[in-house]
Amino acid sequence: MTEPCDLTAVEARRRIDRGDLTADALVRSCLDRIAAREPEVEAWEHLDRAAALAAARQADSGQGGGTLRGLPFAAKDVIETADMPTTYGSPIYAGHRTAWDAACVAMARNAGGILIGKTVTAEFAHRAPGKTRNPWNPGHTPGGSSSGSAAAVACGMVPLAMGTQTGGSVIRPAAYCGVVGYKGSFGEFCLFGVREQTRSFDTLGLFGRTVADVALFRSGLLGEAPVPLAAVDGAALRIGLCRTMFWDQAEPAVQALIEDCARRLEAAGATVTDFTLPPVFRELKESSRWISAWEMPRAFAYEIANHRDKISKDMLEGRVADGANCTYDLYVGGLEKQREAQRSLLDAMKDIDVLITPSTPGEAPEGLASTGTSLFNAFWTEAGVPTISLPAGRGPKQLPLGVQLVGHRHRDRALLEAAAWAAGVLA
Amino acid sequence: MTEPCDLTAVEARRRIDRGDLTADALVRSCLDRIAAREPEVEAWEHLDRAAALAAARQADSGQGGGTLRGLPFAAKDVIETADMPTTYGSPIYAGHRTAWDAACVAMARNAGGILIGKTVTAEFAHRAPGKTRNPWNPGHTPGGSSSGSAAAVACGMVPLAMGTQTGGSVIRPAAYCGVVGYKGSFGEFCLFGVREQTRSFDTLGLFGRTVADVALFRSGLLGEAPVPLAAVDGAALRIGLCRTMFWDQAEPAVQALIEDCARRLEAAGATVTDFTLPPVFRELKESSRWISAWEMPRAFAYEIANHRDKISKDMLEGRVADGANCTYDLYVGGLEKQREAQRSLLDAMKDIDVLITPSTPGEAPEGLASTGTSLFNAFWTEAGVPTISLPAGRGPKQLPLGVQLVGHRHRDRALLEAAAWAAGVLA
Repeated sequence: MTEPCDLTAVEARRRIDRGDLTADALVRSCLDRIAAREPEVEAWEHLDRAAALAAARQADSGQGGGTLRGLPFAAKDVIETADMPTTYGSPIYAGHRTAWDAACVAMARNAGGILIGKTVTAEFAHRAPGKTRNPWNPGHTPGGSSSGSAAAVACGMVPLAMGTQTGGSVIRPAAYCGVVGYKGSFGEFCLFGVREQTRSFDTLGLFGRTVADVALFRSGLLGEAPVPLAAVDGAALRIGLCRTMFWDQAEPAVQALIEDCARRLEAAGATVTDFTLPPVFRELKESSRWISAWEMPRAFAYEIANHRDKISKDMLEGRVADGANCTYDLYVGGLEKQREAQRSLLDAMKDIDVLITPSTPGEAPEGLASTGTSLFNAFWTEAGVPTISLPAGRGPKQLPLGVQLVGHRHRDRALLEAAAWAAGVLA
Repeated sequence: MTEPCDLTAVEARRRIDRGDLTADALVRSCLDRIAAREPEVEAWEHLDRAAALAAARQADSGQGGGTLRGLPFAAKDVIETADMPTTYGSPIYAGHRTAWDAACVAMARNAGGILIGKTVTAEFAHRAPGKTRNPWNPGHTPGGSSSGSAAAVACGMVPLAMGTQTGGSVIRPAAYCGVVGYKGSFGEFCLFGVREQTRSFDTLGLFGRTVADVALFRSGLLGEAPVPLAAVDGAALRIGLCRTMFWDQAEPAVQALIEDCARRLEAAGATVTDFTLPPVFRELKESSRWISAWEMPRAFAYEIANHRDKISKDMLEGRVADGANCTYDLYVGGLEKQREAQRSLLDAMKDIDVLITPSTPGEAPEGLASTGTSLFNAFWTEAGVPTISLPAGRGPKQLPLGVQLVGHRHRDRALLEAAAWAAGVLA
């Protein structure tokens, strides 16, 4: 028999609404799974069993109707919570609490969701890794920076989790952990209470085990009713196969996977054409570096001045050092390139609904020292377009691989609908 | 003899560097002025005399060189501070403290500036007014929402102060209080630790008594050296006289003032031509309302759900009620209009360096019930361009009037240089 914690969020919600499942039973099942897997996976920075059970009892005694009624969720520990600590993955903020819930947590709770804890993040959602291990093989990274959220969803600790992406921090761990990861359009979700890192790129993302679950979570966060995704007519779907300028850095297994997925979507009726990114995308790696180098050391000006000894070498010798070499003109030039990329992508995707492209260059790297590269993620984040990673089999090391779909800015629901269709074809 | 608190920031810094003035004497002078004027003006939410004097002693014993060395400044109380409370102008957060300084405060302190206190703000930098009175006539509003910052600078309590503008919250109080108010380009300053209200419009602004002071403050906040503004050749300056679509709502005194200022700048050598805003600007009032209606209730989702009884009617019956009628499509449509306005303004200003336009429709309204209209401010904020209000005489009630200059996004220094020239001509 399926444990409640292994149900999709959509199915769990249906059962709760029908009275076939209680929020209490669902939360207890999640807590049991956590007890079983946490010693190996270490996905959690903070877990509040008593509060989760109290919230479940309240959900069970309530009237229902909330979009996320009774559904447990986790929040990456850069997302602030009034009743649990928020450490941002930094020793500077051990035990730290804010007086508020981040907007996304407040919206999810208002929709009936049950926050059961805070998941491990790389330091300030940047590079220095947390303790979490890949649930498929603890000798490998789960990816990051939303490490705990992806790992927790992957092993059934929680059906839904929030993360953030400034480079590749949602899509990468989703692919490495074999779950669905959705990075919203830039500006899709309110970021109040989500620790600012690089404001021009910071984006909220959601993890689930199906596209429909992620879509339900998104509706809850936006304050919408739980309207199911519309079925997509695959024959009407115009898909661009986007190998990107980094194709030769993708492992052969990934290249083969993406080509194969594109062929299968085509065979299922979609129109698939080759898609070449506008030339300005080749310049983004350099120009975006200056945006990061300007914005990040300023966003952490207080910590750098007052707690320098508690900041990682990764950050001090990376972005902070870069910042010392960055001028206002380099920064503004970077912003102009970003806007040019956004405009030119919109134009290039005029007759395309969705792009298909790698989520990562390969499987999760061995060891926990690095959370992996954002090579196939950062320029989409910078372009502000929504992306989603779908689990798509395993690589040569038997670790998960993902395929990434890319949509149009603020047409996130259309991307999710196309992704649900694609997931069905590729299943 | 001029009191130290009446010196410009530039002059005070020069004297401190030369050893002709101590930070201690400057801070004491500011505190004396505060003691004299505060009972009438009520500019301060929190004042920390001991901490300010301790910071002054430290500045006096230091090596100097900091861009803001020894200069006292104030921060609007929506700007977070580790060592002083931050209340956001809301009873929800009475006595509340954060574990950090906002990035702008940290940057100013790193540059040697001395934070002497937090200034009164309208509730969450929105509409419900604070206690501050106009220093020119206590029966009138100082404008808002950066009420205390503008009033404090106006009466010599502090040479420099920070504010924020989402509609007209910097330019309006600057004009009403007869000081220089500068709203940076959208994205000019890091907003970490500045309470998010409407993320698509939220902007940091600075108050001072001269353009050069504001420019010095800006350099400190950006982490730049204190390079004086370059002198502008007025004959090379291309100025657009922008009456806007709201010209007939400006009082006759304001219309006459702006026409007169334009003529005087022309007489001083500048090329002045009539400038008409692109037609899309007529649609911004409606479309931007949906951006506010979507973003603000989400940014305050926690407070609305948990502290509704402590939120003003202004906010609940305004933005929060609007939010209930706003859909995702209306929101995204608003964002598209905003981008269209930004693009079309850039194009329309191709051969223009600076626009001249009213700061407000008239003098500060009587009473404290309203902080005034953002009629001549909101669309510039939405367009993301930098603006500055220069004091320009008095109106029929003997209260200050301002003239507003508008520049190009992220060419803030060029705007400040043009403004310094204009201030000289109009003095």
